Amino acid sequence: MSFKEELLTKTQEIEELLKRYLPEETGFQKTVLEAMNYSVTAGGKRLRPMLMQETYRMFGGSGPVIEPFMAAIEMIHTYSLVHDDLPAMDNDEYRRGRKTTHAVYGEAMGILAGDALLNYAFETAAGAFALELSERTARAIQILAGKAGIYGMIGGQVVDVESEGQAISQEKLDFIYRLKTSALIESSMMIGAVLAGASDQEVEIIQRVAKDVGLAFQIQDDILDVTSTLEVLGKPIHSDEKNEKTTYVTLKGLAEAKQDVEEISNQALSALAILEHKNPFLEELITMLITREK
Amino acid sequence: MSFKEELLTKTQEIEELLKRYLPEETGFQKTVLEAMNYSVTAGGKRLRPMLMQETYRMFGGSGPVIEPFMAAIEMIHTYSLVHDDLPAMDNDEYRRGRKTTHAVYGEAMGILAGDALLNYAFETAAGAFALELSERTARAIQILAGKAGIYGMIGGQVVDVESEGQAISQEKLDFIYRLKTSALIESSMMIGAVLAGASDQEVEIIQRVAKDVGLAFQIQDDILDVTSTLEVLGKPIHSDEKNEKTTYVTLKGLAEAKQDVEEISNQALSALAILEHKNPFLEELITMLITREK
Repeated sequence: MSFKEELLTKTQEIEELLKRYLPEETGFQKTVLEAMNYSVTAGGKRLRPMLMQETYRMFGGSGPVIEPFMAAIEMIHTYSLVHDDLPAMDNDEYRRGRKTTHAVYGEAMGILAGDALLNYAFETAAGAFALELSERTARAIQILAGKAGIYGMIGGQVVDVESEGQAISQEKLDFIYRLKTSALIESSMMIGAVLAGASDQEVEIIQRVAKDVGLAFQIQDDILDVTSTLEVLGKPIHSDEKNEKTTYVTLKGLAEAKQDVEEISNQALSALAILEHKNPFLEELITMLITREK
Repeated sequence: MSFKEELLTKTQEIEELLKRYLPEETGFQKTVLEAMNYSVTAGGKRLRPMLMQETYRMFGGSGPVIEPFMAAIEMIHTYSLVHDDLPAMDNDEYRRGRKTTHAVYGEAMGILAGDALLNYAFETAAGAFALELSERTARAIQILAGKAGIYGMIGGQVVDVESEGQAISQEKLDFIYRLKTSALIESSMMIGAVLAGASDQEVEIIQRVAKDVGLAFQIQDDILDVTSTLEVLGKPIHSDEKNEKTTYVTLKGLAEAKQDVEEISNQALSALAILEHKNPFLEELITMLITREK
């Protein structure tokens, strides 16, 4: 099977898994359940659960305890998009060619559906204790909460929102990228490692790899916003310029940004290569993410 | 010490505890940390942590494992108020005589501060595993997530929002009250019982007690909105009528509502009396909540 075929198969498996973890649309509170499911089934690359699962497999993990966490990380990612799209935030009516949640269900339901997804992520993850009550599971929940919160993703979102239309320093930009983009990727890969029983040192290396993957991914995003076309990217280009956003490209220029993506990616792959455990698919996946054209 | 003095002392102790669990206002993401702390320190009766702690004590609990959960339940309660007050929801500029969070920090930060509090609640609760890794702690996290989510508080909020300006059935009103108000009280008291090592049967009785306490509390709220004055209540009366809200009083009339509060309260206190373990302060607290004049 080629990498592309394998990627497709794995993505479909994750889609099936996510569906199993979504709530049934029944009861008086049906609307919010529909809005949650609408948001999660809107598609996407399912990168975070995939990175989690592949890291788990790399360290020899094979049981079902990873599954609730795979669903949970995608719910957290999705809630962050639902709230990001709200009128008081980015005010987006469309995402991936589909109406955003609040555009379909109204603003109040957009807020509540996001809250519900965040809460349900923890409800789902806490379900893992029924499968395995161990230090690993407890640590996985701690990582999940920590990397999504004020010292993780939300922290990055806050500074991102506050920085709009302002010139910001490289230090602040690094902070935003590390927290807004890398944090959930760190969470995914670290949880995979922890649940599979990786050592503290291995988990630390995985965290470094994930941090760099997130960073390179985000810089590549900035580059494509400048160099790609609407047709290839499937979304409007030059959106950062329009939103007066400081990006890696506006700060360092296109040439240096491209060079840095390559350096940071190589750094991530070298760190991964140190580890005794191998997963060729994971390596290819990371390379794809970083060198992608859309 | 009189009940009132004891109540005051215990409330102050909880205020101190909450402060210890709030994040330090430092770093690039300072604004959201300030907004979180502003929301939590806005006051309130601290009922949920108090009910949790007193139920814990009733069953002989004495260790610190309850503390992160006490902080977490108040964070969840607070986030729900912050999001409830948003322009797209109830659009309230003031709460307890103080500007609401979004009125001070803006709408985007109101959304993010609410998200941050919900997430931090789970981050804080997950910290309990560092104190005690046990089935009890795992179950407490499961209860915390379950009672706050789509089959708990959020479920009730959703139906409440959707029912505004509509005539609704007794069945639907019971659903809203059970989920919107009782769920977090059930969560508080059940977590207290579980962490102290109460038996399944005892936890079930506590859940019934808490359900009734929440229900009676909410009906009393409806009654006071009709019978009290602005001066006594400290907030506008007849707000339900103004918002065209179906309440227990509009559905059943004032006389029957009053009778039902008494019946449900007696039911709660009788169920509590079945239990071998006693906590006179908890009994007095519940009686106060239900018979309160404001």
